[in-house]
Amino acid sequence: MTTRESSFGASRVPVAVLGATGAVGQAFVRLLASHPWFELVEVAASERSAGKPYAEAVTWIGDDPIPPAIAGLTVQLSSPAHIRSPVVFSALDAAAAGEAEPAFAKSDRIVLTNARNFRMEPDVPLVIAEVNPDHLDILATQRKQRGWPGAIVANGNCAVIVAAMALAPVQQRYGVRRVFISTMQAVSGAGYPGVASMDILGNVIPYIKDEEPKVEAELCKFLGLRESDHIQHAAMVVSAHTSRVPVQHGHTVVMSVEMTRRADAAEVEAHLGNWRGAPEACRLPSSPERPLAVFKEPDRPQPRRDVDLGKGMTVSVGRVRRDTLFDVRLVAMGHNIIRGAAGASVLNAELMASTGRIPKP
Amino acid sequence: MTTRESSFGASRVPVAVLGATGAVGQAFVRLLASHPWFELVEVAASERSAGKPYAEAVTWIGDDPIPPAIAGLTVQLSSPAHIRSPVVFSALDAAAAGEAEPAFAKSDRIVLTNARNFRMEPDVPLVIAEVNPDHLDILATQRKQRGWPGAIVANGNCAVIVAAMALAPVQQRYGVRRVFISTMQAVSGAGYPGVASMDILGNVIPYIKDEEPKVEAELCKFLGLRESDHIQHAAMVVSAHTSRVPVQHGHTVVMSVEMTRRADAAEVEAHLGNWRGAPEACRLPSSPERPLAVFKEPDRPQPRRDVDLGKGMTVSVGRVRRDTLFDVRLVAMGHNIIRGAAGASVLNAELMASTGRIPKP
Amino acid sequence: MTTRESSFGASRVPVAVLGATGAVGQAFVRLLASHPWFELVEVAASERSAGKPYAEAVTWIGDDPIPPAIAGLTVQLSSPAHIRSPVVFSALDAAAAGEAEPAFAKSDRIVLTNARNFRMEPDVPLVIAEVNPDHLDILATQRKQRGWPGAIVANGNCAVIVAAMALAPVQQRYGVRRVFISTMQAVSGAGYPGVASMDILGNVIPYIKDEEPKVEAELCKFLGLRESDHIQHAAMVVSAHTSRVPVQHGHTVVMSVEMTRRADAAEVEAHLGNWRGAPEACRLPSSPERPLAVFKEPDRPQPRRDVDLGKGMTVSVGRVRRDTLFDVRLVAMGHNIIRGAAGASVLNAELMASTGRIPKP
Amino acid sequence: MTTRESSFGASRVPVAVLGATGAVGQAFVRLLASHPWFELVEVAASERSAGKPYAEAVTWIGDDPIPPAIAGLTVQLSSPAHIRSPVVFSALDAAAAGEAEPAFAKSDRIVLTNARNFRMEPDVPLVIAEVNPDHLDILATQRKQRGWPGAIVANGNCAVIVAAMALAPVQQRYGVRRVFISTMQAVSGAGYPGVASMDILGNVIPYIKDEEPKVEAELCKFLGLRESDHIQHAAMVVSAHTSRVPVQHGHTVVMSVEMTRRADAAEVEAHLGNWRGAPEACRLPSSPERPLAVFKEPDRPQPRRDVDLGKGMTVSVGRVRRDTLFDVRLVAMGHNIIRGAAGASVLNAELMASTGRIPKP
Repeated sequence: MTTRESSFGASRVPVAVLGATGAVGQAFVRLLASHPWFELVEVAASERSAGKPYAEAVTWIGDDPIPPAIAGLTVQLSSPAHIRSPVVFSALDAAAAGEAEPAFAKSDRIVLTNARNFRMEPDVPLVIAEVNPDHLDILATQRKQRGWPGAIVANGNCAVIVAAMALAPVQQRYGVRRVFISTMQAVSGAGYPGVASMDILGNVIPYIKDEEPKVEAELCKFLGLRESDHIQHAAMVVSAHTSRVPVQHGHTVVMSVEMTRRADAAEVEAHLGNWRGAPEACRLPSSPERPLAVFKEPDRPQPRRDVDLGKGMTVSVGRVRRDTLFDVRLVAMGHNIIRGAAGASVLNAELMASTGRIPKP
Repeated sequence: MTTRESSFGASRVPVAVLGATGAVGQAFVRLLASHPWFELVEVAASERSAGKPYAEAVTWIGDDPIPPAIAGLTVQLSSPAHIRSPVVFSALDAAAAGEAEPAFAKSDRIVLTNARNFRMEPDVPLVIAEVNPDHLDILATQRKQRGWPGAIVANGNCAVIVAAMALAPVQQRYGVRRVFISTMQAVSGAGYPGVASMDILGNVIPYIKDEEPKVEAELCKFLGLRESDHIQHAAMVVSAHTSRVPVQHGHTVVMSVEMTRRADAAEVEAHLGNWRGAPEACRLPSSPERPLAVFKEPDRPQPRRDVDLGKGMTVSVGRVRRDTLFDVRLVAMGHNIIRGAAGASVLNAELMASTGRIPKP
Repeated sequence: MTTRESSFGASRVPVAVLGATGAVGQAFVRLLASHPWFELVEVAASERSAGKPYAEAVTWIGDDPIPPAIAGLTVQLSSPAHIRSPVVFSALDAAAAGEAEPAFAKSDRIVLTNARNFRMEPDVPLVIAEVNPDHLDILATQRKQRGWPGAIVANGNCAVIVAAMALAPVQQRYGVRRVFISTMQAVSGAGYPGVASMDILGNVIPYIKDEEPKVEAELCKFLGLRESDHIQHAAMVVSAHTSRVPVQHGHTVVMSVEMTRRADAAEVEAHLGNWRGAPEACRLPSSPERPLAVFKEPDRPQPRRDVDLGKGMTVSVGRVRRDTLFDVRLVAMGHNIIRGAAGASVLNAELMASTGRIPKP
Repeated sequence: MTTRESSFGASRVPVAVLGATGAVGQAFVRLLASHPWFELVEVAASERSAGKPYAEAVTWIGDDPIPPAIAGLTVQLSSPAHIRSPVVFSALDAAAAGEAEPAFAKSDRIVLTNARNFRMEPDVPLVIAEVNPDHLDILATQRKQRGWPGAIVANGNCAVIVAAMALAPVQQRYGVRRVFISTMQAVSGAGYPGVASMDILGNVIPYIKDEEPKVEAELCKFLGLRESDHIQHAAMVVSAHTSRVPVQHGHTVVMSVEMTRRADAAEVEAHLGNWRGAPEACRLPSSPERPLAVFKEPDRPQPRRDVDLGKGMTVSVGRVRRDTLFDVRLVAMGHNIIRGAAGASVLNAELMASTGRIPKP
């Protein structure tokens, strides 16, 4: 705790949430409502909501009440003219993010975004704090090339983050050459109202629009190397099948992995169990005790049972075993809204704050 | 209809169902209750049920009533001493099948079994009527080697059958070298009561006991070549991940396939759409109009929507597309209880009857 | 069949469906696509859809394909200026029905509507064909009072229809004084996309907006008496609790009933089992073999198992037993989209045709 | 905390759990594993489990790990000869409880039982700590009549407890004359494995064996008056309809209530919101901050969203509104395993300890 509190003094950095009424926006509100470093002082949404108190504008889908300090905030428009905070968390949908986020960066704000628009831009860091914190260094290039005093930092697609967390230790020690991925994704990944109950009750939809190319591309960027002015994508080939299942929260991902350097499943499992992620990502306010939890039980992880591990920030891994085709296969599962979206962005912000990239107030 | 009726005269072959009270046993009862060629005259189960009327011994899980002609049959013990029918359909569990099924074969009965015990025996044909009807020819070897006047003919694991139906046309035209499989399997695949609702409601269980080795082995036998006295397993490598999802009926299987001879996805899709299966399996009483249905919609097939196609005997295929890693990837889905179990055995029996392997009464 | 076919000659009455793209609209399309008496020649919807081929305008939620004859119809606007058919089935939502339906009636069309707007108007018959076919007689009053050459005939709320079918025989023989009702309603009752999966997966929502007053009022009208120029509502008091449950189709309704004339549960159960409904509603094209099916099994009816009885037109009743508080209690269940909506309207139209209220072409 | 800790000194009362491997038994283990007053030192089960370490004997259904201090305990037989603890919590099923529980009472143990066997015995207190703590006084009669040095104290059926918590304030202030109850009960109420997924996925089962008479009888005892040597059951009439729905935890109960003294819904709602239960049940270790939470939102409570309120010990109430037939109607929902079973018994034990009925160690 000492570490955490010492990062900032008594006062906190004022922050805003853009797209605060959607499913991920609400998760941001929940995570930031009583954050030790950040003070959520502004919420923004579309014209339809602007001007209303947050509690009135939002269809709150959480089980807990709306945080009282936020409920009364007047919803602003998602543009830099209406938002004063130096740090903004963006849960905007792609249609709005494309214009709004650069405007904020141009206007000297740090944008931590969950939107997909800029993830694959060469000068935009796509970061999981425990996996590739050094990718933040390309912000220098971003600023130089774009002339922004501010910045855009992206987290990734919710299914990719789960996969990347489980593969990062493998990539770091053995190298990953080829990966087969098949996902079983929770309905909350599609936002709210999102998937119609008539479509998914007692059913599987073996298709999520535009998801597979995202998984295949983003994974290579997450696991890539930072060069002086760009990210060298990992030279791995990824094949992703993505499906929707009737689960509330928690994306389950099964993978077969071909490694550059051979190792048996037991060794890989032990390595995953020992992995702690980048040191700079440990002991931040949102850091889970362990980024990965490795299960020995043959039938775990399971989304309904394990999704809340580490307050939703731990990715659970199980069934690490020999593959008949590649080297090892395994199951990974993580909370798509927390670890795969809002929590990932908040952790990135904490990483930026603790490394001096977000100035103290 | 003319074709079908001409195979047999006015009278039908008397048949029995072993393990008639379980989920697959009940499916056999439903499929055979008014069969044009077979007359279900005996039902057998364990000692606990023997002696009771079927309607009393069974916990009927169907939505329809128990077929009236069967409801009153007295349940027999599952041994050749208690069963007179020359043809028996076995839904016995593995613990009972190992002893009972050879006893029936020894006692001059044709056993069509859904049990796993003998599937991988070199002299036991593992048959999908549309895929490898010629494998029945190794019954000659079986009879010679084992000295049985009768025979055992197996159908396969319910998930494998779905995969094998979709892969058979690919294997036949292009050759299959490597397959990555990830399944999302319905709860009815675990029998009744089977999966506890507390385990699967809103959840995924990424593990089915003993399932993956079965998928990997049986697929190679289904797609193998009949040699004079044995089956030459297909020289493909299969990696299977098997998961349970909260779906009632219908196993969904996603696959990435590496082919010996390259072809693009559109060509493979057209080939799958044109495939009709082995001619001798067409126009049997249980033959679906088409063994495969190929969907163009991006989000199909789906188990709840498509499982009953062809009265549960059609396997639905969709999303045939280029794979980033192998050649093509696709989704296949089929009814695990009908096409993947009882219906498959009944179709095998019809094939045997129409090819003279089951004598007319 | 003779009866049915004799009602009309070789040609059929041209009909239209208003609001044809929604969930109930699609059910109308399915039921009318190959109807022996009616020919579906026009589909109408909102401005957003008008001008497009039906197959393009609709998000088809059925498991079956769009009927080919309808797929290519150009969607019209839902106004009498754009629709020529003398009979229109309305699945319009309340916002549109209020204006459109009277316009059609004014324009000499018979409107069979599923909308709630006019159900409780004293001169609008609210009809279940088997229950209160004589209520159609107040159309004379409707025409006189409103000066419409056409007419509006309503079916009721989907939950009420299930309850009314089960209570009608009780009311007819014993009189009903008080009824407690608690419903467990399927998600399809809320249309498509309707209930968000995030709201209902593994959950109960003990509230359906505006539903309870509808149940309480409409039930008294359904079971009321036709007087010369109005419907005398039944003098019963109804208390309804309505809840949404994660079920696809089929509303389950539990009821406790106080009767004017006492009878024990066995007698009431027998009476329900013998009830066939009004003779004029039998043997119409959409009439189920039996309007009520009475189950003796203690745990039936169940929506997933019994919803399709009578092609969705049969209401299932079970657990008829003594009540501790009133006289008898029971469970009723029926298909909310078929018996509770589109099928009810189609049956009403058949009743009107067979009784000369819809002229032959 | 001072209050709590002052009840006992540094050492805790040793306790045992009988039937510790079932669903409710596991809940006892979880609640008692780190209890401030009680030390779980013994776990007992049937012969099949006895002698094994608990972790091996149990199919742990919780999402959390087995408490480490309990995992290694050797499972004992559920008889006083094998158990030394003076206080035993019984999750035995009815078949075992009938013999075992009196044996423990005879052997000077306090038995807090979840089994149904003795609930309706006139000299056995059926207690909800906040509702009828004074019913414990009839233990004097129990001891006198039965000659037991120990005692049996029962909690009730899980659905009844939810209803009784919501009705107790109404009974206390206004008197309850008649209640119509319809329940929608979670699958965990049937234990593990309990309800088969094939039965309940996407379904409602409008029947729970033997449940309705329990609800009707126990409610009158809970809300009855303690006389000098017996409990005068409340003179109310209850009609219960009980159904199973696909929900994991949380029984939802809708009720219509006729009161002796009239009051409008707003007044009743306010009274429910102000109710704190019996003072002696407040501030015990397992007491929730509030025994009842009253929701103003029209669509609450909902089991998946609200079941964990007060760590599962709070009953949620909503939709308090005028009834058309009786006086008020409302929805109540509570955690069937915690508030409705194990937590209720633990709270009863705490109440007994704090009132001197369980001696300090």
